[in-house]
Amino acid sequence: MEKLHAIIPAGGAGSRLWPLSRQSRPKFLLDLETSGKSLLQKTALRLAPVSASITVVTGHKHVVEVQKQLQALVDLKKLPENLPVAVITEPAARDSMAAIGLATYLLAKKYGDDAVVGSFAADHSILRPAVLQNAVRVAIGAADAGYVTTIGLTPESPSTAFGYIQPTDEEIAEGAFLVKRFVEKPSVTAAAKYVKAGYLWNAGMFVMQSGVLKKHLAQLRPDMDKALSHIADSWSLLERQEILNREWKSIEPIAIDHAIAEPVASQGGVATVIMSESGWTDLGDFEALDAVAGDDPSNLAHVVIDSKAAIIRVPSDKAVVVIGVPDAIVVDTGDALLVTTRENAQRVKEGVDVLKVDGQERFL
Amino acid sequence: MEKLHAIIPAGGAGSRLWPLSRQSRPKFLLDLETSGKSLLQKTALRLAPVSASITVVTGHKHVVEVQKQLQALVDLKKLPENLPVAVITEPAARDSMAAIGLATYLLAKKYGDDAVVGSFAADHSILRPAVLQNAVRVAIGAADAGYVTTIGLTPESPSTAFGYIQPTDEEIAEGAFLVKRFVEKPSVTAAAKYVKAGYLWNAGMFVMQSGVLKKHLAQLRPDMDKALSHIADSWSLLERQEILNREWKSIEPIAIDHAIAEPVASQGGVATVIMSESGWTDLGDFEALDAVAGDDPSNLAHVVIDSKAAIIRVPSDKAVVVIGVPDAIVVDTGDALLVTTRENAQRVKEGVDVLKVDGQERFL
Repeated sequence: MEKLHAIIPAGGAGSRLWPLSRQSRPKFLLDLETSGKSLLQKTALRLAPVSASITVVTGHKHVVEVQKQLQALVDLKKLPENLPVAVITEPAARDSMAAIGLATYLLAKKYGDDAVVGSFAADHSILRPAVLQNAVRVAIGAADAGYVTTIGLTPESPSTAFGYIQPTDEEIAEGAFLVKRFVEKPSVTAAAKYVKAGYLWNAGMFVMQSGVLKKHLAQLRPDMDKALSHIADSWSLLERQEILNREWKSIEPIAIDHAIAEPVASQGGVATVIMSESGWTDLGDFEALDAVAGDDPSNLAHVVIDSKAAIIRVPSDKAVVVIGVPDAIVVDTGDALLVTTRENAQRVKEGVDVLKVDGQERFL
Repeated sequence: MEKLHAIIPAGGAGSRLWPLSRQSRPKFLLDLETSGKSLLQKTALRLAPVSASITVVTGHKHVVEVQKQLQALVDLKKLPENLPVAVITEPAARDSMAAIGLATYLLAKKYGDDAVVGSFAADHSILRPAVLQNAVRVAIGAADAGYVTTIGLTPESPSTAFGYIQPTDEEIAEGAFLVKRFVEKPSVTAAAKYVKAGYLWNAGMFVMQSGVLKKHLAQLRPDMDKALSHIADSWSLLERQEILNREWKSIEPIAIDHAIAEPVASQGGVATVIMSESGWTDLGDFEALDAVAGDDPSNLAHVVIDSKAAIIRVPSDKAVVVIGVPDAIVVDTGDALLVTTRENAQRVKEGVDVLKVDGQERFL
């Protein structure tokens, strides 16, 4: 049975979930589904059954907590004992291409250029993991046929929060279709058109042979290929950290979508596996979060009057009265408070940006 | 110069200012004007220049804090050294007639039936105390002419939050006009009509000779007159507390407006002194409070986006982001949180009532 070397880039605070999500305790470290496990832990757990190894790429600030959370899964025997789990520390955030690239070049060194790697966000939620696991198995087949293979989601709505994938009818491997192009987050009108035309949501899941990614990078981003090769070649040397730090400084911050997926799609090198009914969500704002884990309706100290569909997340020992604010979003973490509405849920980042400009780093 | 025996009934939590105002630290004990003094202290200070004595009537729960706050004024030499200041403890809340009556009967005992008493709420705010002091001096004249004299306010708006006083043109003493009737809190339409017709806001300020009040009470509420007389007669006896407790149990809870002002007005026994431009407010909700003491605009951890006229009161070390909630009212006291809008400011009490029904006493 074919297996995946799973790569989980764990960066990004998730500032649209401020103040729950903070730079010091980013979204992926939080138990946002109130399942008893963090989003990162859940991601590792649902990938484990189809994985030959798991590699998490994260920043200095979070490496200790990431290791702790993964170790907890091992200790609880939730992860197979013989499954290699590694954590790589990025010297600084350089967007997804650098993070996925670093892991890929290291995995290629260890497992060979025909090893299949796959990248999955650390801070999404999937209700039915078996659906993802099946999609991954199909994607591995397409990856072995030489394609950069993305797992595309059947849209649940004409969302403007995601990019879209335009598939063709051409089945290049069992269950995998050639991709015509990727499109950026659309307008409302365009999104409706895309959904009607059978476009898929781009959830940033990419599966491919490590050698295929390296080949594309060498062609499209030769500087990054050189830097990553240098780092991978020196990984077992004494000067590893020094070389990593030096190369990382000049590395280009770019998303894998722009660096690889879009240009390779235009060359006919991208396939997609269509995933439906997985219960996927990126937990991209409090409205999405509320759909997964609502507030506690049994809390008698929460009084909501004339405020239908209010979302309330406050410390459990705090009284809250909300009157006359329909669709209210009220999130209190003790040291910080957000008040907005579902309509404005995607704008929370604007508030965080203002705090940053105002020098309020301690609240970010 | 004529002087007043000022009575300040200090009861009532002020639940429309929840969670700032609580049963354990009611509105009158709070520094809501951010002046460095509580509303009760400010009330005592503005009455002192026209007063021969000050008597505060309050409940068991607050007597210690009331005494402390008054003593602080004496210690700071803010109150004249020779001004008698007394605190009377009610065994239980029995509305304003009982509280004012108890003080009046005791003051009559001490200063005689022709001593002029006047009652003033402990939790209002007056920007220009000299305007009130002048009105009180005029009211004392009308009181000495035998009238129950109310200080009526020139309306600033057709508010539906106050009762109204209908004056006549008949000047029964210098600057004091016979009152035709009192009307309850009106509808919006009626309020506009009243303002146009020259009615005054009823702010619950009553000035009269103690003997006049006693005479009216003996006629209108003979049971209460008997109970208060019994209490006053036994005030210097050993069994004072026992008699107070016993009589208080059966005393009728009723507002002075209903017990005295309304029926005496219909007998032609009430006069009014018109007070204008005093900057009076009852601080009856967060909108009124905001007009007196706004939030701190210099706080860089308060981010308000697309939420004009937002009112924000949170602990000084807390970050707040409000997005897309115009006229938002956000009040956080650490253990409790209110989110509403200016339009719903008067409805805060509804939320407090629900907390009570739900058994959340610790948050009231």
